[in-house]
Order: sequence, then C-alpha cells, then structure tokens
Amino acid sequence: MTERPPLHEALTPLAFLLGTWEGEGAGEYPTIDSFRYRERVAFTHVGKPFVAYTQRTWALDDGRPLHSETGYLRHTGEGAVELVLAHPTGIVEVYTGEVDATSLRLATATVATTPTAKRVDALERDFRLDGDELTYAVRMAAVGLPLTHHLAATLRRT
Amino acid sequence: MTERPPLHEALTPLAFLLGTWEGEGAGEYPTIDSFRYRERVAFTHVGKPFVAYTQRTWALDDGRPLHSETGYLRHTGEGAVELVLAHPTGIVEVYTGEVDATSLRLATATVATTPTAKRVDALERDFRLDGDELTYAVRMAAVGLPLTHHLAATLRRT
Repeated sequence: MTERPPLHEALTPLAFLLGTWEGEGAGEYPTIDSFRYRERVAFTHVGKPFVAYTQRTWALDDGRPLHSETGYLRHTGEGAVELVLAHPTGIVEVYTGEVDATSLRLATATVATTPTAKRVDALERDFRLDGDELTYAVRMAAVGLPLTHHLAATLRRT
Repeated sequence: MTERPPLHEALTPLAFLLGTWEGEGAGEYPTIDSFRYRERVAFTHVGKPFVAYTQRTWALDDGRPLHSETGYLRHTGEGAVELVLAHPTGIVEVYTGEVDATSLRLATATVATTPTAKRVDALERDFRLDGDELTYAVRMAAVGLPLTHHLAATLRRT
C-alpha cells in the first residue's frame, strides 16, 4: 500500500508544489487578534490525476495546535485548476483557478458550512514559488466583511 | 509537532471511532460495474474538539489506488454530529447526524462540486461498531438517481 508511482501527466503543471513544506506565517482579520504560526504543508500524489493537500499550523509562542485543513487539487487542462478543501471548523470550499509555471491563483466558487460553523462567504488563495520558497496569501470575506487580507506565510521544502 | 494530548471532552461520544482501521468493502451503483476494495481509515485527534478522518481504498485484484477522501468530524452536543469531507473527484460534502454508544448516522445537508465533477445530490453514511468490527454503509443519490445503496465495508482496528 506504499507506492512511488510516476506522476500522472495531468499533474505536470502542479509538480512544482509536490513535497512537504514548513515555515512561518501571520494571520489577521478585522474581527480577531493578529497571530503568528508555524506551518507544515504537504502536496502528495499517488499516480492518479489529483494532488492531495494537507496543512497544519501551530502557535509560534507555545506550540499549541491551531488550524488544519485538507483536500485535493486537480489540473483540468490548459492551466485550469480546481481545489476542494475541508476544515475542522465545519467549512468546505470549492475553488477554481489557474496555474502557470510558478504560481497558482484560486477563488472560491462555493463555500458551504455546517449549522454550527461561522459564516464564510468567499476566499481567494495565491501560491507562488520564488527560488526555493513557497509563499501564499489568503483573502477572506466572512462575518459580513468583504474580501480582506487574512493569512500570509513563507515555506521551504523540508 | 508530535502530540499525544488528552482527548477533548467534546469528543467522548466519538472515542469509539479513534484509531486506524483496515478491511474490505464492496461498491455498486446502477450506473457502474460492481467492485471490491481494500480500505484503510484513520480517525485521529490532536486534543482539539474535532476528529480528523482520512480514508483510502485499493482494488482487491491488482492493488491499484481507487478512492480517497478526507475531512473532519465534530460532536456539537447532545449526540449531534457534523462531518465535512472533500473528495479528489471534486466533491465536498457537509453532513449532520447523530452518534450513540456504538453508531453514527449521517446525512448530507449540502453537496457541492467543482465545474468538472460528476453531479452528486445527497448521501447517507452509517457507521456501527460491533465487537471489534467497524462496519459502514453509504447510500448515494447521484446522476439523477434517488438514494441508492453504494458502499459497504467491514474494518478491524490495526
């Protein structure tokens, strides 16, 4: 049940993301205190035409677990990509976007939540590879606010 | 970044699911050939009030990877539960349901899909612990059909 299969040809445009990345990030939003975090992200594949994505963050001050999210990324042709994500806060996100040689730009087509989750209306996520650093930024429209900068981090491959 | 924290008190009703489970299952649907699969499921926690869920399946005949899914399960009080899932096929699912001493019954509140995904309208999932066996069944309404038996498997803790 452990495979090292060849990369599916549909994933060639996403190959620059593959691996495990670690680094630090900062979060802010008008309704919460700003915070800093350590992060580990993994983009993996099993030879099929999708990339599995897992993410976890920990508080920089005391190492307590903060956020996590998990999902799958697909390249559907000619640079078009789709991302689906689930969050432990009861939120699921469906993104569409585009990939080029070193960057990925995504915006939600749908955000859905469980009955007890906070309301989130829309998100945008950008990833960019710059040398050996992967950076990302997340903008979020939630609790009645428009798309507003929320998260940014810089990661290096482990 | 490796924790063995105490179980969050909100998860007590879900503790019977925790661990890694392996076994075999069978899938069928009116629009596809029936199939059998080997499966590995893990329910894990990090001390916070949610259970992380990961699942992978492999074909019984040649071991090729088949499905995978990932998400989070929460107990929101008095036996009420919420599950969010993402699939590499471009589908996200939001479930509500209930848990008792040895079983979990869930039905989708929302199913959302990427532009290129197959249409899925609704699902129901039941898990039941019987001795040291965890069994589940999935019913699915998809591609215009009503809720119809789709998957069943029997798993044992590894």
